[in-house]
Amino acid sequence: MTATLPAEVTATQVLVQPALREAVDRLRPPMRRLVTYHLGWTDERGHAVDGGDGGKALRPAIALLAAEAVRVSPEAALPGAVAVELVHNFSLLHDDVMDGDLERRHRPTVWRQFGTPAAILAGDALLTLAMDVLDRAADPAATRCLTTTVQDLIVGQSQDVEFEQRVDVSVAECLEMAEGKTAALMRCAAEVGALLGRASPVAAELLAEFGRCLGMAFQLVDDLLGIRGHPEVTGKPVLADLRIRKKSVPVVAALGSGTADAAVLRELYRRPEPPTEEELRTMAQLIERSGALDWTRDRAQGYVAEARACLDRLGPPVPIHAALSELTRFVVERDR
Amino acid sequence: MTATLPAEVTATQVLVQPALREAVDRLRPPMRRLVTYHLGWTDERGHAVDGGDGGKALRPAIALLAAEAVRVSPEAALPGAVAVELVHNFSLLHDDVMDGDLERRHRPTVWRQFGTPAAILAGDALLTLAMDVLDRAADPAATRCLTTTVQDLIVGQSQDVEFEQRVDVSVAECLEMAEGKTAALMRCAAEVGALLGRASPVAAELLAEFGRCLGMAFQLVDDLLGIRGHPEVTGKPVLADLRIRKKSVPVVAALGSGTADAAVLRELYRRPEPPTEEELRTMAQLIERSGALDWTRDRAQGYVAEARACLDRLGPPVPIHAALSELTRFVVERDR
Repeated sequence: MTATLPAEVTATQVLVQPALREAVDRLRPPMRRLVTYHLGWTDERGHAVDGGDGGKALRPAIALLAAEAVRVSPEAALPGAVAVELVHNFSLLHDDVMDGDLERRHRPTVWRQFGTPAAILAGDALLTLAMDVLDRAADPAATRCLTTTVQDLIVGQSQDVEFEQRVDVSVAECLEMAEGKTAALMRCAAEVGALLGRASPVAAELLAEFGRCLGMAFQLVDDLLGIRGHPEVTGKPVLADLRIRKKSVPVVAALGSGTADAAVLRELYRRPEPPTEEELRTMAQLIERSGALDWTRDRAQGYVAEARACLDRLGPPVPIHAALSELTRFVVERDR
Repeated sequence: MTATLPAEVTATQVLVQPALREAVDRLRPPMRRLVTYHLGWTDERGHAVDGGDGGKALRPAIALLAAEAVRVSPEAALPGAVAVELVHNFSLLHDDVMDGDLERRHRPTVWRQFGTPAAILAGDALLTLAMDVLDRAADPAATRCLTTTVQDLIVGQSQDVEFEQRVDVSVAECLEMAEGKTAALMRCAAEVGALLGRASPVAAELLAEFGRCLGMAFQLVDDLLGIRGHPEVTGKPVLADLRIRKKSVPVVAALGSGTADAAVLRELYRRPEPPTEEELRTMAQLIERSGALDWTRDRAQGYVAEARACLDRLGPPVPIHAALSELTRFVVERDR
C-alpha cells in the first residue's frame, strides 16, 4: 500500500509551480541553468525535461494550506510558499556538497555534475532569491521568521556534520538536530503562511507548532526509510544512511539500547573503512532487533498526535483542517 | 611611501565595529565562533585576539560617508554599512573554498582550519545575517539593492571560476567579471548609504556610480598587487595570482598584446603542472615588459577620474566630498 498525498495538498501545485518558475526565471542565466537542473526541470545540457516538476513540494503546500486554515485565500501565502521551497533547495544544494551525496532524484547531484563551486554558488543564489521573494510581500514578521529559520537550518546541518565524526551522540542531541535540519523549515512554512494570511497570534503559533511536529514526524520517517526504504522507490542507494554511518535517530537509539547487539553495532560504526554489503545488512538487522525502528515509529506517531492536537485547538473547523490532518497520516505512511 | 586612509574613513570604524560586533553576536554559537575567527577577532580556539579588528572595512566606510555626503548623520546608514561588510565576508568565506585559498590575513582560511562544511555554513550564516540586519532598517529600496548585488557577486565569482579553466578570456570579459565580483558591492555600499540617508534619486545614482568606479579601480590595483605586491605587506603568497594562473586584467591584457612575449606567456599559462619559482618570475617579467601593468594602472586612474567626476556633480560641496575624493587616491596608491 502506497500512501498518497491529500488532494488539497496536490492541488496547491497549480499555484506553486508557476510562481516558483517565475521566481527562478529572475535568476541570472548561469545560475538559472544550474537551479533548473537541480529542480529536475532541465537536463545537464539545459534542455527541458518532460514532467520534471521536482519533488513533493510539501513545504509550499503547508504554507498555502496554513493561510486557508485561517480562512484566507491561498494566494496570500504564495510569496511565503515560494520562499520556503527556495530555502529548502538552497539547503539541499549545499548539504549535497558537505555530505558528498552523489545522487538526487536518480540523477547526479549538482556538485557532481557541474563541480563544487557551481553547487555552492547556485545555493547562494537560491537563498538570496528566497529573501528577495519574501521581501516583496513586505511583511516584516514573515521575513524575520524566514531569516531566523535559515539560521536554525544552518546550525542543524552543522550538528549533522559534527555528529558523523562523533561516536557518543545522544538521542536528545539527534532530536535537537532534527528540529533544526527539518522541523524548523516546516514550522516556518506553516507560520509564514499563517502570518501572510493575517492569522491571529494564537492561530499563527498553533499552525507553527503544527508544522514543527509534522516536520519532526517527517524526519523520523525519513530516518526509517534510510534503513528500511526501497531504493527504487526512495531514489537513494540501499541502506544509504548506514553506508556513510549517519547518526540518524533509529541508529542512535539502537546504539544506546544497552544490549549485546548495541555493542556489535557500535563496533561496526567505529570502523574506519567503508562497510561491506554484508556488514550493511548486519547493521540493519541489529538495529531492527534492538527495537529502535519501532521506537522511532512510535515517536513519529507521537508527533503526529501533537500536530493534530494543534489543529483541534484552531477553533471552529474548516474543511482544510481535515486535509492538514490527512497530511500528517501521509507523512508517517509514505514509502519515499 | 605607503598610502594612508583618509582620517574620515578611519573614523567610521568607531561606529562600524560595535555595530558589526552586535550583529555577529546574534549568530548561534557554532557559527559565531567560525565567523569571529574569520574576521580575525578570535584565534582557532575561540580566544580573543588583541587588536583583531579585521581588514580595512572600506565598504562600510563608503556606506556611512555616502550618507554624510548627502548631509545626513552617518548613523542612518549603519545597518547598510554592517550588511555590506557581512556580505563581503560571506563571499570571502565561500570564495576561499572555491579557489582553494590557504591563507587570509596571515592565518589559515576557515575551510583549511575547520573544514569545507564549516566554511560553507559560516558563509550562509553571514549572508542570512546581512539580510536580517538590513531588513530591520525597513527600507525596501535598500534591501532590493542588496539582494540584486548579491546575485551580481555570485555571477562574478562564477565567471572567475570559469575563466580559470579557459585560455581565451578577453579584457572585456575580465572587466565584466570585476564589475560583478568587486565593483557591484562597492556600488551597493554607496547606494545603500545614500538611500538610507534619504538622498534624492539623482544623488543616490551619482553616489552609486562613484562606488562602482571606485570598486573597478580597487580591483585593478588588486590585480597589480597580485603580480607586483610584497607578500609581507599584502599577506598573500608572492605572485599568488600567477601561481594559480588567475586570469586577472593585467594578465589577460598581456596575453592579448600580440607580442612574442605574449606567445611565451601563453605557453606558460597553458601548462598543466604548477609553475616553478623561476617560471613565476619569468611570467611576471613578461607581463611587465608587455606594458600590461602600465595599461592597467592607466585604466585604474581612468576609473578614479570618473569617480571624482561623480562627486563634482553632487552639488554644493560638503567637506566629506573631499574625503571621498581622497579615498580614491588611497585606492590606487595603496600597497596592500
